[in-house]
Amino acid sequence: MFVRNAWYVAGWADEIGVTPLARRICNEPVVLFRDSRNRAAALLDMCCHRGAPLHIGKVVEQGLQCGYHGLVFDHSGACVHVPGQEHILERTRVRSFPVVEQDAFVWIWMGDPAKADPHKIVRWPYHNDTVNWPHKHTMYPIKAAAMLMVDNLMDLTHLGYVHVSTIGGNPTQHVEAKMDVERTSLGVKFTRWMLNSVPPPTYVKAVGFQGRIDRCQRFEFVAPGSVLQWTGASDAGGYRDGDTSDSKLAFRLYHALTPETDTSCFYFWSAANGFRQDEPAATEQFFEQVAAAFLEDKTVVEAQQTRLAELGESALVDIASDSVRLHMRRTMERLLAEEAQQPLAAE
Amino acid sequence: MFVRNAWYVAGWADEIGVTPLARRICNEPVVLFRDSRNRAAALLDMCCHRGAPLHIGKVVEQGLQCGYHGLVFDHSGACVHVPGQEHILERTRVRSFPVVEQDAFVWIWMGDPAKADPHKIVRWPYHNDTVNWPHKHTMYPIKAAAMLMVDNLMDLTHLGYVHVSTIGGNPTQHVEAKMDVERTSLGVKFTRWMLNSVPPPTYVKAVGFQGRIDRCQRFEFVAPGSVLQWTGASDAGGYRDGDTSDSKLAFRLYHALTPETDTSCFYFWSAANGFRQDEPAATEQFFEQVAAAFLEDKTVVEAQQTRLAELGESALVDIASDSVRLHMRRTMERLLAEEAQQPLAAE
Amino acid sequence: MFVRNAWYVAGWADEIGVTPLARRICNEPVVLFRDSRNRAAALLDMCCHRGAPLHIGKVVEQGLQCGYHGLVFDHSGACVHVPGQEHILERTRVRSFPVVEQDAFVWIWMGDPAKADPHKIVRWPYHNDTVNWPHKHTMYPIKAAAMLMVDNLMDLTHLGYVHVSTIGGNPTQHVEAKMDVERTSLGVKFTRWMLNSVPPPTYVKAVGFQGRIDRCQRFEFVAPGSVLQWTGASDAGGYRDGDTSDSKLAFRLYHALTPETDTSCFYFWSAANGFRQDEPAATEQFFEQVAAAFLEDKTVVEAQQTRLAELGESALVDIASDSVRLHMRRTMERLLAEEAQQPLAAE
Repeated sequence: MFVRNAWYVAGWADEIGVTPLARRICNEPVVLFRDSRNRAAALLDMCCHRGAPLHIGKVVEQGLQCGYHGLVFDHSGACVHVPGQEHILERTRVRSFPVVEQDAFVWIWMGDPAKADPHKIVRWPYHNDTVNWPHKHTMYPIKAAAMLMVDNLMDLTHLGYVHVSTIGGNPTQHVEAKMDVERTSLGVKFTRWMLNSVPPPTYVKAVGFQGRIDRCQRFEFVAPGSVLQWTGASDAGGYRDGDTSDSKLAFRLYHALTPETDTSCFYFWSAANGFRQDEPAATEQFFEQVAAAFLEDKTVVEAQQTRLAELGESALVDIASDSVRLHMRRTMERLLAEEAQQPLAAE
Repeated sequence: MFVRNAWYVAGWADEIGVTPLARRICNEPVVLFRDSRNRAAALLDMCCHRGAPLHIGKVVEQGLQCGYHGLVFDHSGACVHVPGQEHILERTRVRSFPVVEQDAFVWIWMGDPAKADPHKIVRWPYHNDTVNWPHKHTMYPIKAAAMLMVDNLMDLTHLGYVHVSTIGGNPTQHVEAKMDVERTSLGVKFTRWMLNSVPPPTYVKAVGFQGRIDRCQRFEFVAPGSVLQWTGASDAGGYRDGDTSDSKLAFRLYHALTPETDTSCFYFWSAANGFRQDEPAATEQFFEQVAAAFLEDKTVVEAQQTRLAELGESALVDIASDSVRLHMRRTMERLLAEEAQQPLAAE
Repeated sequence: MFVRNAWYVAGWADEIGVTPLARRICNEPVVLFRDSRNRAAALLDMCCHRGAPLHIGKVVEQGLQCGYHGLVFDHSGACVHVPGQEHILERTRVRSFPVVEQDAFVWIWMGDPAKADPHKIVRWPYHNDTVNWPHKHTMYPIKAAAMLMVDNLMDLTHLGYVHVSTIGGNPTQHVEAKMDVERTSLGVKFTRWMLNSVPPPTYVKAVGFQGRIDRCQRFEFVAPGSVLQWTGASDAGGYRDGDTSDSKLAFRLYHALTPETDTSCFYFWSAANGFRQDEPAATEQFFEQVAAAFLEDKTVVEAQQTRLAELGESALVDIASDSVRLHMRRTMERLLAEEAQQPLAAE
């Protein structure tokens, strides 16, 4: 069950071109492509003639041509050409999905098209500021529900156990981090302070910390699938007054979790570095460090999914560090309940 | 659901020897073998003692010996030897299926054995005429319903999209081919005329056409699984009077589609060339060209199967070029309805 | 459906160490490990916090630490540490299973812990007597029900068909072996005599028999998963009086079949040689011969499972050599029926 009246990341803008891309989103087979006018478009990935997937076709002047019998569909899903047939019935069309290209993402709306308001899409200007925030991005296919990946980001005590050799380090300091939490209409924000702490290996590699540091991590979950992260660190004492503007290390991460099926998702993430911005090697090195850490999350969450799929969640026990995660889950339950009361026009 | 009172191709005669061959046909596990008298035989591929598949056994003097505890079954499925036991109960037997070897095929009857009339098997004398019609044959396992492969052959407008670089070519000429259609008791025949057209790459490779050509393709579908194909081409003008006896290029293809499961089948096909018959390289080259084209069909039809298995066919829209295909489908529906009214004696 | 109030082999003692081992037993995911006091322990392989499998964790001083958020469980399944939380709720625990280490095995009890009596575990002193009975052991994962593997051992006429080139040989002598059978409370014992018979290849390789031999095989099935085997051979005439104490070749095999799922199991087996005991190469060579033979069983039984899973056992026909096997099956049915009348306390 997915929240459908919402924008999800369908892909990185640079993934979507004239070669059609098949991607299952909220358990629907979707084909993403750019038409001859360079507009990103998303259609149900199934020709309405004989059911062939449209992703085996190709982009032609008028739209996307099915690779089986040559029907052509425009970005709205309307059939604009049937070989050997002059009149085209109105119902010769495939379902289309609203898409918006913004901040290096292509966003897709899987619910009622009439409700698709582009102004509600989360902004992430760092993706456009290559001078101050050079970034790299990728996508990990995850064999686990999107919610389990969001769970992962809402309880950062896992850093001390999952990411011992990368971005984690000392478990105690993660467990004892001071937390400021603020609820929002579509999720939750929290800030974690770890003052006078031992820097994790990633940080030392990035900017060469010599001794203890002050760390600050701000996270925001925006339902249904975004987790925004602002992180900074200074030499110990630098954040004493709660001001993080003078950071030696700063970075911005975007975590976008898009459901593929009930038990799999796409993890689109980017890493933008606010340090050594004129050194491409620094961007690369930082990305590689984060990439290694997120593979650690992938491993543990996929293993978790296997057990939950078999044995369910009903017997599980919450602990102290679950509080932010539980708020996130309640937000999602509220949205699902709201949608359940307003059936989609399209269905 | 399959038409069961019908002959299906179980294998090429040269596939079936003393080494037992396991093949699922109409969703039943079958073991094919030749007994010590060289008779092709087909049994249910499961020993009636402890259920071991008989294909892991071996052919002995009296029949097929189970590889687990040594029971032996003759070509009729009767048990003729139980190690350590003198008297054999009548019910110690496995189901057998009528088989007929003819025209390089081994045909099998999956329905009521009392109705298995060998005279109803489609003949294809080309397979026996190696002087005028040298041929090569093979089998492609297809992860799609047999009917989707027959569909493919009943709407040849796909040649312009699926087989661009092999036997297809210009989409427009395939869409605009003049069609003569004739319904038959067990299917449909149709002839496609493409006069004064550009030869496809395969044709040029075969006989070196220099300019435009006249093409004629005759197809016949014989339910439930055979599509016979007679093709000819001459230099443009040669078929002006509808007479194709003087062809520069001629070939015969047999397409046999045998259901494996509801969503998979075996595609047995042969290519016989009626040109350059004394050049083995010509036969080989022609076969390779056809083989490449049919792999293109396999790819698109398997992709189609995936979508239909998930989303069904109910929302699909027929187009002009579907008319022959729809007649074929109606024939199959009629046969299935007839069988539904006459339950199999064997079940 | 499994007999649950019974001891099963969970693993070889040398498989279980500080690195947690995941193994599904009677369709329950179990994690096996040794705690810091070197005690073997078995827990449900799922953290009670967020469901992560415990096998991705690590053994720490207090027990097994979950690899996700750091909870620690002792060998009884009680949670002894929750990071960031002082008070631990009583229900913060995972299910544990009684385990006993004995005779090189770790045994596990999957039923009501109150009924787990270690004195009922089958003894196999050969595993501890490396001077007179050097042995090697291993485990084969089998994609077939444990009962099909026990079936295999209860009808040794299969040796003449499955193991032609290894431990089998002449089918007739296996079929005609003289059998002494004795029923027991938890199974069945039988002795097979093959006097004045041709030695199988394995025997010749082991001790260099020159001519015919007398063979004696004693088997005992102890429900639910053990088959014990005492085998001896002498030059022909040596066993004339039914006395096997003077054997040229002697070996002991333990076959332990532990259900993984309804259609898969673990085959733990050992081969102890009572000949050429001071030659490690003899132990190795004998083990390799047996290993090859048991792979032959694996192949045929896995093929059998495939058919039975599809077509069931209801139409099968028993033969003369099934009598011991049928007694074994009746014993199992009786135990299952008894358990069905006494629901487990733990459930």
